[in-house]
Amino acid sequence: MKRIVTISREFGSGGRSVGKKLAERLGVKYYDKELVKEVAAETGFDPSYIEETGEHSASKSSWSYLFASPGVPGIMKGMSASDFLWCIQRNVILKLAEEAPCVIVGRCADYILKDRDDCLNVFVHAPLNYRADRIVRLYGESDKSPEQRLKDKDKRRANNYEHYTGQKWGASQNYHLCLDSSVIGIDRCVDLIESLTREL
Amino acid sequence: MKRIVTISREFGSGGRSVGKKLAERLGVKYYDKELVKEVAAETGFDPSYIEETGEHSASKSSWSYLFASPGVPGIMKGMSASDFLWCIQRNVILKLAEEAPCVIVGRCADYILKDRDDCLNVFVHAPLNYRADRIVRLYGESDKSPEQRLKDKDKRRANNYEHYTGQKWGASQNYHLCLDSSVIGIDRCVDLIESLTREL
Repeated sequence: MKRIVTISREFGSGGRSVGKKLAERLGVKYYDKELVKEVAAETGFDPSYIEETGEHSASKSSWSYLFASPGVPGIMKGMSASDFLWCIQRNVILKLAEEAPCVIVGRCADYILKDRDDCLNVFVHAPLNYRADRIVRLYGESDKSPEQRLKDKDKRRANNYEHYTGQKWGASQNYHLCLDSSVIGIDRCVDLIESLTREL
Repeated sequence: MKRIVTISREFGSGGRSVGKKLAERLGVKYYDKELVKEVAAETGFDPSYIEETGEHSASKSSWSYLFASPGVPGIMKGMSASDFLWCIQRNVILKLAEEAPCVIVGRCADYILKDRDDCLNVFVHAPLNYRADRIVRLYGESDKSPEQRLKDKDKRRANNYEHYTGQKWGASQNYHLCLDSSVIGIDRCVDLIESLTREL
C-alpha cells in the first residue's frame, strides 16, 4: 500500500478530477487548492497570491524581494517572494505527508517527496485538442484561444518545475506512472492508480 | 480492444520481457529481433548490421552511402544506409500492423503507427541502479561499467528516435502509458497493459 499519491498534470487533462476521485475512493485527504490555506496560515501571504505563485514561481511578477517585510524570519530575508513561498510550501507538503495518507495534486510534490518510498508519483497528460475542448467546456471561453491558454499555463508550470527541481516536467522518468487521459479516460485512470496504490 | 501494442523502453528496464509476455497472454505475434529478419529479406542487408543500425541509425558508423550498391532501387540511391534502412523498416512495420494484431518492441513503432487509432503506445523505464543490476545479471559484466553501458545505449536510442521522429524519447506525451518497472514490477506491467489493451 502506498500512503501518498502525487499527481502532476497538464492543464485541462483532468488530472485534478482524477486526484479528487482517487482521494474519495481511497478515503484519504486531498490537497490542491487546500494546500494554499495551509501555506497562507504559515506565511500571512494572501491566498490568491499563493494560488497564482505556488505553481508559477519562476514568473517575472514574483521577483519582489523580502528584504524588509516584518514577520518574515531572518533566514528568509533577501529571498525572492517566490523562493520563500517555495520553502514554506515544501515544508507544508513534507509535514502533510508525514501526518496522514493523502493525494497531492501539483506543487512539485513528486520531487519534494522523492526520498519517501511510500509515494506513487503519477503524471496525467492529453493531446492539445482534447484539453482545449475540455477547458472551454469547464471554464468557458476567454480572450485568448484555448490552445494559447493551454500553452501559456503548461509553459509556466514547466518553468516552475524545472526551476525548482532541475528536472524536465513531463519526462516519464520522473514518475512511476504516466497516463494519457484522452485515451484511457478519467475513470479508468482512477481505477488504475487506485489498484496500484493498494497493491504496491 | 487495441489491435497493436508498441513498447518503447530504456535499456535494461525489462520492456522487452514485458512485450514478450504480453504477446503470449494476448495470443498475438511479437516483433523485436524478429523484425530484423523481415527487413533483411527486403534489403539483403546482413541481419547483424540491421540489428545494430535499426535502433541506432544516427550513429556515425552508419553514414555509409548507397550511391552504387547493386540491387538498391533508384529512388533510394544517395540515401545514407541508415535512412534507407529506416524507410524499409518503416514499411515493414506498417505492413505488419495491417496484417494482424501484434506487439512491437522498439524501432520507433509508436511514431510510425501514430495515424492508427488501434494502437496502444507504452514506454517502460526504470532508474539507473535497477537497470544496472539487471543487465549485469542478464548479460554479464563487460569492459565498461554497467552505468556507462546504459547511458551509451539510451543515448543512441534517444538520438535515433529524435532524428527520425522529431520527438523527445521518453517524453510522456508521446505514449498513452508510461511505467516504471522497478516500482510496478514486470508482471504487473504486463497485467496493466493487457487489461488496457482488452478494455480500450
